[in-house]
Amino acid sequence: MDMQKLTYLEFQEFISKKPIAILPIGAVEAHGPHLPIGTDNYLAERLSRKVAEKVDALVLPTFSYGQVWSLRNVPGSINVSNEHLTGVLTDIGKSLYKFGVRYFVIINTHVGNMTAIKEAARNLYDFYKDLKVFYFIYPGTAKITKEVRESKPMPGGYFHACEIETSYMLYLAPDYVKMDKALDDFPDLPEDFEYTPTPWDEITDTIVLGSATLATEEKGQKIIDVAVETIVKILEKTK
Amino acid sequence: MDMQKLTYLEFQEFISKKPIAILPIGAVEAHGPHLPIGTDNYLAERLSRKVAEKVDALVLPTFSYGQVWSLRNVPGSINVSNEHLTGVLTDIGKSLYKFGVRYFVIINTHVGNMTAIKEAARNLYDFYKDLKVFYFIYPGTAKITKEVRESKPMPGGYFHACEIETSYMLYLAPDYVKMDKALDDFPDLPEDFEYTPTPWDEITDTIVLGSATLATEEKGQKIIDVAVETIVKILEKTK
Amino acid sequence: MDMQKLTYLEFQEFISKKPIAILPIGAVEAHGPHLPIGTDNYLAERLSRKVAEKVDALVLPTFSYGQVWSLRNVPGSINVSNEHLTGVLTDIGKSLYKFGVRYFVIINTHVGNMTAIKEAARNLYDFYKDLKVFYFIYPGTAKITKEVRESKPMPGGYFHACEIETSYMLYLAPDYVKMDKALDDFPDLPEDFEYTPTPWDEITDTIVLGSATLATEEKGQKIIDVAVETIVKILEKTK
Amino acid sequence: MDMQKLTYLEFQEFISKKPIAILPIGAVEAHGPHLPIGTDNYLAERLSRKVAEKVDALVLPTFSYGQVWSLRNVPGSINVSNEHLTGVLTDIGKSLYKFGVRYFVIINTHVGNMTAIKEAARNLYDFYKDLKVFYFIYPGTAKITKEVRESKPMPGGYFHACEIETSYMLYLAPDYVKMDKALDDFPDLPEDFEYTPTPWDEITDTIVLGSATLATEEKGQKIIDVAVETIVKILEKTK
Amino acid sequence: MDMQKLTYLEFQEFISKKPIAILPIGAVEAHGPHLPIGTDNYLAERLSRKVAEKVDALVLPTFSYGQVWSLRNVPGSINVSNEHLTGVLTDIGKSLYKFGVRYFVIINTHVGNMTAIKEAARNLYDFYKDLKVFYFIYPGTAKITKEVRESKPMPGGYFHACEIETSYMLYLAPDYVKMDKALDDFPDLPEDFEYTPTPWDEITDTIVLGSATLATEEKGQKIIDVAVETIVKILEKTK
Amino acid sequence: MDMQKLTYLEFQEFISKKPIAILPIGAVEAHGPHLPIGTDNYLAERLSRKVAEKVDALVLPTFSYGQVWSLRNVPGSINVSNEHLTGVLTDIGKSLYKFGVRYFVIINTHVGNMTAIKEAARNLYDFYKDLKVFYFIYPGTAKITKEVRESKPMPGGYFHACEIETSYMLYLAPDYVKMDKALDDFPDLPEDFEYTPTPWDEITDTIVLGSATLATEEKGQKIIDVAVETIVKILEKTK
Repeated sequence: MDMQKLTYLEFQEFISKKPIAILPIGAVEAHGPHLPIGTDNYLAERLSRKVAEKVDALVLPTFSYGQVWSLRNVPGSINVSNEHLTGVLTDIGKSLYKFGVRYFVIINTHVGNMTAIKEAARNLYDFYKDLKVFYFIYPGTAKITKEVRESKPMPGGYFHACEIETSYMLYLAPDYVKMDKALDDFPDLPEDFEYTPTPWDEITDTIVLGSATLATEEKGQKIIDVAVETIVKILEKTK
Repeated sequence: MDMQKLTYLEFQEFISKKPIAILPIGAVEAHGPHLPIGTDNYLAERLSRKVAEKVDALVLPTFSYGQVWSLRNVPGSINVSNEHLTGVLTDIGKSLYKFGVRYFVIINTHVGNMTAIKEAARNLYDFYKDLKVFYFIYPGTAKITKEVRESKPMPGGYFHACEIETSYMLYLAPDYVKMDKALDDFPDLPEDFEYTPTPWDEITDTIVLGSATLATEEKGQKIIDVAVETIVKILEKTK
Repeated sequence: MDMQKLTYLEFQEFISKKPIAILPIGAVEAHGPHLPIGTDNYLAERLSRKVAEKVDALVLPTFSYGQVWSLRNVPGSINVSNEHLTGVLTDIGKSLYKFGVRYFVIINTHVGNMTAIKEAARNLYDFYKDLKVFYFIYPGTAKITKEVRESKPMPGGYFHACEIETSYMLYLAPDYVKMDKALDDFPDLPEDFEYTPTPWDEITDTIVLGSATLATEEKGQKIIDVAVETIVKILEKTK
Repeated sequence: MDMQKLTYLEFQEFISKKPIAILPIGAVEAHGPHLPIGTDNYLAERLSRKVAEKVDALVLPTFSYGQVWSLRNVPGSINVSNEHLTGVLTDIGKSLYKFGVRYFVIINTHVGNMTAIKEAARNLYDFYKDLKVFYFIYPGTAKITKEVRESKPMPGGYFHACEIETSYMLYLAPDYVKMDKALDDFPDLPEDFEYTPTPWDEITDTIVLGSATLATEEKGQKIIDVAVETIVKILEKTK
Repeated sequence: MDMQKLTYLEFQEFISKKPIAILPIGAVEAHGPHLPIGTDNYLAERLSRKVAEKVDALVLPTFSYGQVWSLRNVPGSINVSNEHLTGVLTDIGKSLYKFGVRYFVIINTHVGNMTAIKEAARNLYDFYKDLKVFYFIYPGTAKITKEVRESKPMPGGYFHACEIETSYMLYLAPDYVKMDKALDDFPDLPEDFEYTPTPWDEITDTIVLGSATLATEEKGQKIIDVAVETIVKILEKTK
Repeated sequence: MDMQKLTYLEFQEFISKKPIAILPIGAVEAHGPHLPIGTDNYLAERLSRKVAEKVDALVLPTFSYGQVWSLRNVPGSINVSNEHLTGVLTDIGKSLYKFGVRYFVIINTHVGNMTAIKEAARNLYDFYKDLKVFYFIYPGTAKITKEVRESKPMPGGYFHACEIETSYMLYLAPDYVKMDKALDDFPDLPEDFEYTPTPWDEITDTIVLGSATLATEEKGQKIIDVAVETIVKILEKTK
């Protein structure tokens, strides 16, 4: 299922039967004192694997560098511009199409990437009538998230390295979580937060937006399971 | 040493003491019937780790998508344009500089990436007087390669998935090598091969240029050891 | 208040006292059989004037061409790319800054413009430390909208030329509304609607998503009043 | 005739019968102490309407932001780069073509826009064999202008906010003209004025190049009438 | 005076005394049956030399590739885009500035180049306060041209490979002129010629616009002498 | 054979029989105290002529501006960016193709140009199936160079204005060589020279890398003759 391990002949054979390729994309980004800066990459990779197992699809190597404008001033956050990210994702889609892939599934775990991903998907839409590009960022999980959440959401729905995201990690990549460093932080957002560019280092010192201490593996599992199901359900329609 | 595993606070502390970051970069590319399409990525990652252990430096997540013009028509070869690759690498360097990195070490295993890497390095050179960008592609190994090689080199020095590269894999990532599928192929190159754009699918069906069957772990180790030493020697001068 | 009417000397004097400039931005876009294709422009312009009256600020000429990917295939919908739109908005901000404007207020009525507006705002953020760029798209109206709405929302919150938007027009530009042509349409959205590029001409023939017949001037006034208040409140903090 | 007022269905019907669309384009630019900074936009819009009435064509919303290099340092002059302006105009032309427009008529009143307009027209020329893009800037008026003009022309034919342009405004948008502030200014141009980039704030304090006091509505009407006739004559050949 | 012939040390010394560099720029373009396709390059080069002799300045190697949109379909006409031409000219200016050049004199003989040249000059204007970029295309010759001309001008002032340009060649590069092939052609221009992109192969078969047979060396000398004087006069003011 | 001298009709006829065009490309670059800054241009032009004589092909005007990053800080070295150089070369190729050229032969004498040339060649490869772009930089001369060379090569094979290049000039353009100023310089290269961007002004004051004093016309002739033969042999296969 790990595309990299295959020889080109094996890849060719696999795609001829199952023309789906999954690209995990995350980011290197500060995630508070308890989560690693590779958090989004670990989540993207492992979520992708869970999906791939269910639909028997190939997983591309993780694209580990995302658009991280909001936290770009915080050490450990690597920021790629929308323009360049869009370019590379479009190029990857072109190569995949050439080899017979007809479903290019981008499993994303970092909100900041959505602009570039959508732009790339629209580029590819214009190039190839018979290529379908999907982009997923924990799809279908609004309801279950509301159910499992014990902390109150931040105004505007912002969250980061919090009850929810930490729970994802406890489920998918527990070895990298330091729950003893977990903390809660609900910083006041300035009134114009949504209406003007605001680097997050102006609003938080902890790089946590929410309650990390309330995270549990179980909560993570519940939400991730729904995300996987949602993706799988849509991909199965493509058969 | 794996940067992704650190929290942003640990990253900050590490870099404040040792302002070096190593970026492994390879490619997804056809490598004959016996090597995986992730060959360059496995090599870049593991070579980087060996270097990092010796100089006690951080290793960034592998950049797995390279410029693969020559083999772009062969299934499994993902091709990113020089322009976009240059852009992303430049962005990564900018973020690293912001956080105190002063030695950005690009360990590359795919020849096609050199154009974009050099362009990015020159961009960064102009932006930051006190940032040093290194780019290495098996440096210092010409002599030892000549010594260990049993097959005759292809005209023009071209090689791919051959005695040398397969030996690298047998040493650094043996689990992914299928020596029973290894073969020898010394295709005739057209006389104008070096002088006009020539996709490699016009010259080879096997995607092997050289003798894969002569590869051994020992040969790989000998060359890789020299590459590591060369890099380490240069990086140690930076202290 | 209409910037265009001033001589350059009057402009200079005004800005020296009140360094705010408001840019209305909409789009030319199909809006069903009952609303004009200039709907977003009328709304942006009149909403901007209401704000300008309250805060005594200048209103720039309306930028009437937006990013209209979703409806680009439907006659009358003019689509400008994100790249070019970002470029022009950034240029406008640069000129305004040069003349002393320190609050560049973009009042937007078309969702498709948000990507370019944010990119431009971030560009300007990097150029000028003391320029604040605001972007508003009916801010603060979630609650009041829920209260006045009689029709059920479409899944995913999508809406267009519907109860809400038609009410805006009945309040702000009633002369251009043909309520006798108003209709209701709640098309089924394909399950992957949010996850893959989908031109809206694939989901609707009427170019209405919701219930236009339920629109009233009163509903429009209630929501618009809250939007104006929200913007005014934030701008007043800037004094 | 005002395209914005139409529904998309009315637009579609209109264009199917008369595939012409007129885009007025001006600029926001300083025009001396007696003319508003929206002068070029008022002129473009009203000139376009006169043409549209005669040929029964649609008028797009005015594009109000032009390339204003020469006066970019004078307050109230908003400057858009040639590159971005070309991009947006090309995009607009593409959308119009898609909906059946075959004559895209750009009525321009600001010299600085011509470079971008021509570049966009050439782009569209290459995309669509059967789209004709026209660009007009007071065409056919050289002779009549010479006749009505009482002041002597500036060397090199430069003029701005002068007898001619003020007369246009007195005819087309008299409400915005403050003739009591009109003045005459014939600044000496440096000898290399035509041969090196020279911002106009280096040559004029009044932002008037010529004699504004000699302007009359009658002069304006005479010239504008010829411009309208010239455009109409050419457009009528397209039928 | 030919910059290319100097060693870098001689160049450095020369520029330290006389910080002027002249760039001749022409085009490869069809010029009727009697003039070579290098006409504009020969003229630019020789005109530049005449100027250089008078002001004792260096002449750069001729830039022989211009923007040739109008004749791009006629064999022998090489067309470089405005974007790329602007880029290269800007780069050249940057290097010259770095080495002490403070007057970058572009002597152009091809109208189509003016857009790119002006754009490059404006770029450089923004980069360097103390660099002056001049652009000349037969400056100051309107009056003398009118005097020597025997043929009537084409409407709109268009001319090409005609009495005037052929006379330039008879004076500056007579060896390349085949007067026995010279002809007269005054094609009717379509009424919309100035108002819509029109490749010249639609209006002429001969690629002559005017009367080539009336050309004489004497006419050429008279006009060129004035052009040289005009340039020299302006450059002498820079001392 | 000099394309510029032909009329467009002669050009058309020539190409219809022999669809080959040769573009000499060099650079303006410091070449020590004994060689002119136009060295690469003289060499490209004269080498091209020798080839053209043998294969009866047209020679385009020399493209005299190259990518000169390494020596860009040394007076007299004009540096064009890879991006712009690629653009112009691609444009030239497009025009040539339009007129029937099917073999676009780029004879290059400056290593720094190879990146842009290859990128342009690959662009053209994708545009036109039946256009062949060749790029030559003294091809096939490795063996003969080793034979004639008396000085030892610099580590890494770097050379500049040395025994070899000066010999080229003594053979092809002796009038521009000042052998009395020739010198020998074998600067120590820093250990990381190949692995990080290093302007050559950091390693040499003389701008000579090698032994200029050992240069002779005979050595130059021997090597150049092989280069010409190699190119001719390949071009003859194209017939």
